[in-house]
Amino acid sequence: MSTTLGWTIQDWLKFHANSVPETSLQSLLDVVTFVSSSKDPVWISIANEETITHQWNILQSKSNKEKLPLYGVPVAVKDNIDVREFPTTGACPAYEFTPTEDATVVKLLKSCGAIVIGKTNLDQFATGLVGVRSPYGKPTSVFSEKHVSGGSSSGSAVAVGRGIVPLSLGTDTAGSGRVPAMLNNLIGVKPSRGALSCSGVIPACKSLDVVSIFALNLSDAQYAFNLLAKPDLANDCYSRAMPENPLFKFYSGPNQKIKIAIPANMPWYGESENPKLFSKAISEFKTLENVEISTVDFTKLLDLAKCLYEGPWVAERYAALEKFYESNPDPKSLDATVYKIVQTAKNFDAKDAFNYEYKRQTILQDIKQSLLEKFDVFIVPTAPLNPTLKDLEDEPIKVNSYQGTWTNFVNLADLAALSIPTGFRSDGLPFGVTLLGNTFTDYALLDLAQQYLTKIHPSRFIGGLKHKTVGTGDHLDYSIQQRIAGESSTSIELAVVGAHLKGLPLNWQLDKVNATFVEATTTSKDYKLYALPKTGPVLKPGLRRVEVGGANIEIEIYSVPTSRFGEFISMVPQPLGIGSVETSKGKWVKSFICEEAGYTTKGSVDITSFGSFKKYVQSLESNTSGLLGAKKVSF
Amino acid sequence: MSTTLGWTIQDWLKFHANSVPETSLQSLLDVVTFVSSSKDPVWISIANEETITHQWNILQSKSNKEKLPLYGVPVAVKDNIDVREFPTTGACPAYEFTPTEDATVVKLLKSCGAIVIGKTNLDQFATGLVGVRSPYGKPTSVFSEKHVSGGSSSGSAVAVGRGIVPLSLGTDTAGSGRVPAMLNNLIGVKPSRGALSCSGVIPACKSLDVVSIFALNLSDAQYAFNLLAKPDLANDCYSRAMPENPLFKFYSGPNQKIKIAIPANMPWYGESENPKLFSKAISEFKTLENVEISTVDFTKLLDLAKCLYEGPWVAERYAALEKFYESNPDPKSLDATVYKIVQTAKNFDAKDAFNYEYKRQTILQDIKQSLLEKFDVFIVPTAPLNPTLKDLEDEPIKVNSYQGTWTNFVNLADLAALSIPTGFRSDGLPFGVTLLGNTFTDYALLDLAQQYLTKIHPSRFIGGLKHKTVGTGDHLDYSIQQRIAGESSTSIELAVVGAHLKGLPLNWQLDKVNATFVEATTTSKDYKLYALPKTGPVLKPGLRRVEVGGANIEIEIYSVPTSRFGEFISMVPQPLGIGSVETSKGKWVKSFICEEAGYTTKGSVDITSFGSFKKYVQSLESNTSGLLGAKKVSF
Repeated sequence: MSTTLGWTIQDWLKFHANSVPETSLQSLLDVVTFVSSSKDPVWISIANEETITHQWNILQSKSNKEKLPLYGVPVAVKDNIDVREFPTTGACPAYEFTPTEDATVVKLLKSCGAIVIGKTNLDQFATGLVGVRSPYGKPTSVFSEKHVSGGSSSGSAVAVGRGIVPLSLGTDTAGSGRVPAMLNNLIGVKPSRGALSCSGVIPACKSLDVVSIFALNLSDAQYAFNLLAKPDLANDCYSRAMPENPLFKFYSGPNQKIKIAIPANMPWYGESENPKLFSKAISEFKTLENVEISTVDFTKLLDLAKCLYEGPWVAERYAALEKFYESNPDPKSLDATVYKIVQTAKNFDAKDAFNYEYKRQTILQDIKQSLLEKFDVFIVPTAPLNPTLKDLEDEPIKVNSYQGTWTNFVNLADLAALSIPTGFRSDGLPFGVTLLGNTFTDYALLDLAQQYLTKIHPSRFIGGLKHKTVGTGDHLDYSIQQRIAGESSTSIELAVVGAHLKGLPLNWQLDKVNATFVEATTTSKDYKLYALPKTGPVLKPGLRRVEVGGANIEIEIYSVPTSRFGEFISMVPQPLGIGSVETSKGKWVKSFICEEAGYTTKGSVDITSFGSFKKYVQSLESNTSGLLGAKKVSF
Repeated sequence: MSTTLGWTIQDWLKFHANSVPETSLQSLLDVVTFVSSSKDPVWISIANEETITHQWNILQSKSNKEKLPLYGVPVAVKDNIDVREFPTTGACPAYEFTPTEDATVVKLLKSCGAIVIGKTNLDQFATGLVGVRSPYGKPTSVFSEKHVSGGSSSGSAVAVGRGIVPLSLGTDTAGSGRVPAMLNNLIGVKPSRGALSCSGVIPACKSLDVVSIFALNLSDAQYAFNLLAKPDLANDCYSRAMPENPLFKFYSGPNQKIKIAIPANMPWYGESENPKLFSKAISEFKTLENVEISTVDFTKLLDLAKCLYEGPWVAERYAALEKFYESNPDPKSLDATVYKIVQTAKNFDAKDAFNYEYKRQTILQDIKQSLLEKFDVFIVPTAPLNPTLKDLEDEPIKVNSYQGTWTNFVNLADLAALSIPTGFRSDGLPFGVTLLGNTFTDYALLDLAQQYLTKIHPSRFIGGLKHKTVGTGDHLDYSIQQRIAGESSTSIELAVVGAHLKGLPLNWQLDKVNATFVEATTTSKDYKLYALPKTGPVLKPGLRRVEVGGANIEIEIYSVPTSRFGEFISMVPQPLGIGSVETSKGKWVKSFICEEAGYTTKGSVDITSFGSFKKYVQSLESNTSGLLGAKKVSF
């Protein structure tokens, strides 16, 4: 097992690609042997040789199995999510049942080739942010046996933090996927509500629950999110499809930076070191050239957070558990704190539920105008504290509620969240921040995190694995973005030929409309290219289709979301326009074209011989005369 | 008064425009004198001379008052909506209070120049669909003193139905704006939720309430909706702005009709004549050439309807009235049926509220896929029955619930609705249907209703005014649409020059992307126009900017929603493109342009001398040679 410890998804895929199936299977069996012997309260159920072999055989029977994106990758699943090979307990022995079906997200994992190693511990029924509310034991932080792992997805976080699996599923209603990510130095993806199916998950607050992802680095997080974010409308009433053209990065360009807000007043509950680490992280973000950070009043968001635990949403927990609690379960099976919390549901009647919903809508209406329309991203501490087991013994509810300060409001406000590590305290414990963005900005949050982590922490170690540096693991895989854009039926392929080419001054206009680079190619040989007389700061080209004398002209093709095409075309000045061009492969795509009146204007230069506007521009830069190889147009 | 009886908004505006202020004021005073003497239970409060004069004087003090869109138009307001000059009662004497502010919708009416004549009766606290649940008396249908007016907006409907005012406000949570529209032969607009502010309205079910509009004809309904649909985010947590480019009509064109669904199985509760009237109305809709009607299973919508009255939403009514009911109001002040209904709120706890919300979301998820994505419009009976006062005495709750069959689900499903008259029974009572469309299709529903009413019932009489035929009143005012499109910051002006011109074969492509005609004009004199060689079924033009030999070419400018521009450009084939053109006023707008390769192709015809592609096409039609006045291009 020691060899695979700390392997990322990509490490596992590489290993399997270079192994015979027997070796691959053995590596997975070694993982469960190791886990079984560890007696770690991280696990509620662990696969045995039979369950691993069974999953392995199913995988082997698949056609094209080697191409599966998670072929043979071991994963862990929080024990409130159904996996057919294991009982589901919700961390409550008396609740245990054997599911007849995999949860939708588990089906997806398996269909991608993943092997489920075991089910992980949690705050009972996912009610908690600490990880100690479980009769199955208390997982501790990978950095300290005295400190809690955070919860409720405690086991799933620690399983990744220890490097046993590169990927695990948690759930996150009020912070359960983010707080433990911070306390174990992980990436925690809290997807937009509905992006991942909750079918087959024991509900906590069904209207707010999401399935979350733990990973060691950003690229694994992006990879897994992409595989799991699939609509499941038939099985989950809150499921929503991601937009066909999701935002891949927050726009920044000439005169516009990514607008980030941080809270003006922050409660730290007596903690003294984490505030400094938060300030440090913000100073580091400020070194990114394309961001602009403002300090903003977050009172409304904190008011919203209070609604969650003070208000009637606890009745959702009761709605999910009523039958179970009424069946007189063995009290030893119940976590006393969780039981007490869920019973408070009875204090709320339907009128309270509506009154709090009005309160929430009033706050949301305000937040929308005061925050969401003004900022792209909010950065908050993931959690204020790194609590010890003793802290929780002393104050089981208060410390838990402190930990939710920056997480509780997020699903109520329908935001996407990404929890990332930003550094370590003097006692060696980790700290982290959470990036929050509007619904379905999940990919864009990953992009911002990439900018930060690759610049500020390029050699950080991952999880609790002090010997394992991140390498290129925080670099996102651009091909995922290209594939999503390429598969979109709601985007238009556009060929650019001049100042919009990569590295040239108007390329930002493509970023601005969330366009994705598809390929560099050339036109058919039937085009001439002109440099138009310079009328503004930017030199523009004119493409002219001809019957004779043409050449293959270099173009770049971008996928532009159809709904943003109008915004793009608004920026295109006369004599240019958007028409169609024939590529060298004989395909017609939308493209910049030019009116005859453009390239016949005095001062136009025929630059067809360069075969490329970029090469012409480069020649100008290395040649003051700028006319080498170009000839004045003569009409 | 008799002279103004049955006047529409436009009649009133015309009258005031041709009167001196004293005459105008007197006409309004005559209305209140008439109303006061009628002792009609329609009214809870009636303006006196002082309140009318007060409002009139404020109006007279306004600058530009003659241009106000409702200058001096008398209106009635349901007595659950605050108007400063009157107490608000909600049809409950003990609840009465004097508002210090106008409700937002009333502010808008007054700022447009309207004069509030009085406050109208309703089912107490807007709880009912019958109009008999009020200690202020029982308004009856304008067609029969034995039949109910429908409710809860009973008084507002009858005030318009009798022709006293041309416009009144109701509210509609579960059908209160639609059922009485049918029973009084009116247009009832049930706007998309949040489109009209509910600030200053006594909540019924706050999460579902809307302010509704009664009018005598479609153009008044459209006119009023346009004036009142304004966001009020600061005061109403459910307020939403209409889209900047609302859908003005459901698209129909080559190979695509407006897709209408009607219910497969319809409960009629023993009624025998209305089913025939419904079938007749559907047969009439089928005569519209651009619609396609399918019979569809509406069970899911009926399930949703049941949620409203069986489920916890009644707790919203209690949430709004708890303090009042707990103040031990005089029992004589309370309608016993309403009281009994609202008290059932106590049967629901917060858990029930969430469980029903899950049920609703599950149904909505299903409806979205099975109905909303497949159909543009649903047509349902507005109400199944025309009940008598006696029917209600016998069965005060059952008959009421029957009446909500086709209205109860609408706000839960976030649909827009428009109730229109479709004919009369043999006993002279009216029947009507409701057109339902997705959120914010309010204008498009009006357009479909216009098609139906102007074709099928061009001479119908309005309200209860058998001598008053509708005239042109069901013809919508196209300039409202043009103004909205013109003011949109999210649309692009596009000049079309060829087959997209009005009456030519590709004009439908502009409809398809919800574009609005702005103006017909010409290019600057620097353009030549060509007819390109015909390569497909449609003849295409090529516009060429030239330094000499050009002419002013006729163009039409359309406002295209920016978000739909990409969809439009997808339909533009090579050698055409979208660039920019200079108009005769020297303004540059986006426009069709043409590559040189287009108009230099053999077979292109210089048609500049026609000055218009349309004129060229017309000349072809009247001239088989087709080349009269055109000359072959010679390059």
